[in-house]
Amino acid sequence: MGAAGAAKGTDPNAEVIVFTEYEDTSYSPCGIPYVHGQEIASFESLFMATKQHYVDQGIDIRYETAVTSIDVKAKTVTASDGTVERYDSLVLATGFNYADPGVPGGDLGGIYYVKNIRQAMEWDKVLDTVKTAVVDEATPLGTEMVTALAHRGIETHLVDPAPWAMSMATDPDIMQPVEESWVEMGAKLHFKTKVTGFVGKGGKLTKVTTSEGDIPADLAVVATKKEPNTAVAVAAGIKTGMSGGLIVDGRMRTSAPGVYAAGDCTEIPHGVSNVPIQGLSGSHAYAQGKVAGTNAAGGSREYQAVYVPWGMVAGKWMIGGVSFSETLATALGLPFITGMAQGISRARYYPDVKPVKVKLLAEPEHLRLIGAQLVGGEGIKERADFLAMAVRTGITINDLATMENVYSPPIGALNEPIALAAQNALTKVRS
Amino acid sequence: MGAAGAAKGTDPNAEVIVFTEYEDTSYSPCGIPYVHGQEIASFESLFMATKQHYVDQGIDIRYETAVTSIDVKAKTVTASDGTVERYDSLVLATGFNYADPGVPGGDLGGIYYVKNIRQAMEWDKVLDTVKTAVVDEATPLGTEMVTALAHRGIETHLVDPAPWAMSMATDPDIMQPVEESWVEMGAKLHFKTKVTGFVGKGGKLTKVTTSEGDIPADLAVVATKKEPNTAVAVAAGIKTGMSGGLIVDGRMRTSAPGVYAAGDCTEIPHGVSNVPIQGLSGSHAYAQGKVAGTNAAGGSREYQAVYVPWGMVAGKWMIGGVSFSETLATALGLPFITGMAQGISRARYYPDVKPVKVKLLAEPEHLRLIGAQLVGGEGIKERADFLAMAVRTGITINDLATMENVYSPPIGALNEPIALAAQNALTKVRS
Repeated sequence: MGAAGAAKGTDPNAEVIVFTEYEDTSYSPCGIPYVHGQEIASFESLFMATKQHYVDQGIDIRYETAVTSIDVKAKTVTASDGTVERYDSLVLATGFNYADPGVPGGDLGGIYYVKNIRQAMEWDKVLDTVKTAVVDEATPLGTEMVTALAHRGIETHLVDPAPWAMSMATDPDIMQPVEESWVEMGAKLHFKTKVTGFVGKGGKLTKVTTSEGDIPADLAVVATKKEPNTAVAVAAGIKTGMSGGLIVDGRMRTSAPGVYAAGDCTEIPHGVSNVPIQGLSGSHAYAQGKVAGTNAAGGSREYQAVYVPWGMVAGKWMIGGVSFSETLATALGLPFITGMAQGISRARYYPDVKPVKVKLLAEPEHLRLIGAQLVGGEGIKERADFLAMAVRTGITINDLATMENVYSPPIGALNEPIALAAQNALTKVRS
Repeated sequence: MGAAGAAKGTDPNAEVIVFTEYEDTSYSPCGIPYVHGQEIASFESLFMATKQHYVDQGIDIRYETAVTSIDVKAKTVTASDGTVERYDSLVLATGFNYADPGVPGGDLGGIYYVKNIRQAMEWDKVLDTVKTAVVDEATPLGTEMVTALAHRGIETHLVDPAPWAMSMATDPDIMQPVEESWVEMGAKLHFKTKVTGFVGKGGKLTKVTTSEGDIPADLAVVATKKEPNTAVAVAAGIKTGMSGGLIVDGRMRTSAPGVYAAGDCTEIPHGVSNVPIQGLSGSHAYAQGKVAGTNAAGGSREYQAVYVPWGMVAGKWMIGGVSFSETLATALGLPFITGMAQGISRARYYPDVKPVKVKLLAEPEHLRLIGAQLVGGEGIKERADFLAMAVRTGITINDLATMENVYSPPIGALNEPIALAAQNALTKVRS
């Protein structure tokens, strides 16, 4: 919808058609775990615009109508209702599918793939009856869902093959307080454990089998890795890259003339490593959609390499970061030094002061920041945004160690935790 | 105390003596308004370290003993108790005095100059009996004190010669919600108004006279501009600059050999304008103290030009910023473009979502950020810190317009308000 709006904004006379397999557009799927967790009262608040809004904008949306094939030579798409539409420009925004757990029983009742809001509304009623749930994999969605289900009072088991949660982006020292808080919330953690099967009775899940034993459960949330949904594009001969996402250039153009792509179906080079990565955030998808839609309608915009700030609530904490963890940098063979600090968010004597732990990674030669992780009680998102810009613009830990900071008892401590972590890194450089 | 600790840390064998006119060291004066406002329960929590702590560190503190003269040739100081001490290095950290309001009656009972914690403890008892208070000038301290006294339920009048609060750092559009919230809290605002005198009965304040009429009051808080306290240094021949603060180089050295200075008694060049400025924050003072103390003990550290992020709670809002407001840039004749956005702090449907308004100033040629102001409900301090680093490192509004941001419903919105403000500025560049 970001692409459609940008296209119409660029050329108000353009005919803009949107195909979607779903009944709705323009709601916030990111809000679904928080309705399940009962932090948000209802699904209705997740909708951003009415269907009439798009009619008024002159955007022609074909609901419940998926594109089933693309002819890149004829410049046509064929939809599930048999319609054929010619295009001058086509934007692919086909998103992701969860990686198949690849185990028996995946089609049983009681197995939940979080995605569509209408289905989420139905599942939310089911949650009222659920006693025990298994969340398969501590991905970002898995992390949100464990938190949500535990908050709702369901006995929740998290199963993940890695030794700690969110291991693709985090280090264990950052996740330790999160895992402790999950245990406090009643969740059971099964790390270094693989789901090996779903077992049911009368077509309905009764237990999840794992490499470390069985877990009786009446719900399983499959939160495996997101894989780019590229089947229709690949069938049309459009090229994918090493991560499996559609290859795009800075203008979000694919390998086919006039065909753009945006969001989870693409891959985008990481600004530090130049390795194409896939499965970014909703804000990335939206920004890419705007670039693709602008260019598709004859405008000119460039998308940049990404550094991927991330953040979320996990258990009783906020976590966040940017680019490389120590674990990931080590796996990739990137040299680095680290700096670590345990700081606070306000004056130590001010009510509701929260801990803020910061870990920084810098490349050893010029001391440019290449990664960060944070865990704390407030100000995590804003710091992650800052540190993402720092990585992108080549800011060093020398710069961060001497950063000025706001000190005011209700909103900021004398010593900014980022500066303390950078100062800690410098002690290692000097020694 | 930052300088003393850094000196001892640099050379543990150094003999470190601290003279102070007060009964205490090492408490947080910045917390005083919040005890008066009853957000913090007691003054005791403002103390950071015991006297024994400094004894254990080997720092010799001479309480209630002010230095009354310095002989820069003999390298000695003479104290109020007649002691003469020789120094190899001397660090001046004499702070500020409030500008004399220059009106009759300034020595009456009931006139409060916020500074010393022991006096604040006595004044806090007085506040229980106060019905009506006048705060003279909407400086940062004045802004905090209006908020505190109104929060405590005292009828509070703010008197300031400027047309809006904090006018040295802010624009009226940013302060408008703050002023509205003060009115909601019962405060009376008297802008474009000068205090002309303090009138009393039996030596005790009964009313404050102003250019716009009299205000009956039993308390007046003098929160005039902070002026560098340099009398003893000036008498010793140490040079002051155009702002009245002691001139220091990057190592915090004054014009006298072996004499350093740090904090509110100095002036520091602004990184954008190169104009020396004075009266920065407690975090600046502390950082300068550490640099001065390190160098005084034979180490080597440099302090940088400042960009001055600032922030505070004002009324029911958080405000903050860095470097130049539109008002100040105009007064200095700096060319600029602005960008403005009204954003939000979390997903619009997430509980406790707060508005975040951002105003950016950039120089028109290269579009480098030269100033920012923010008003909102959360994440203001962290954004001000980020934008201060942006000004310092030459980040442009192009960079900010394409910044990546964390999007997660409980902690961050789809669109970061800073990015929206930068995008708004770019629309003016293009048109």
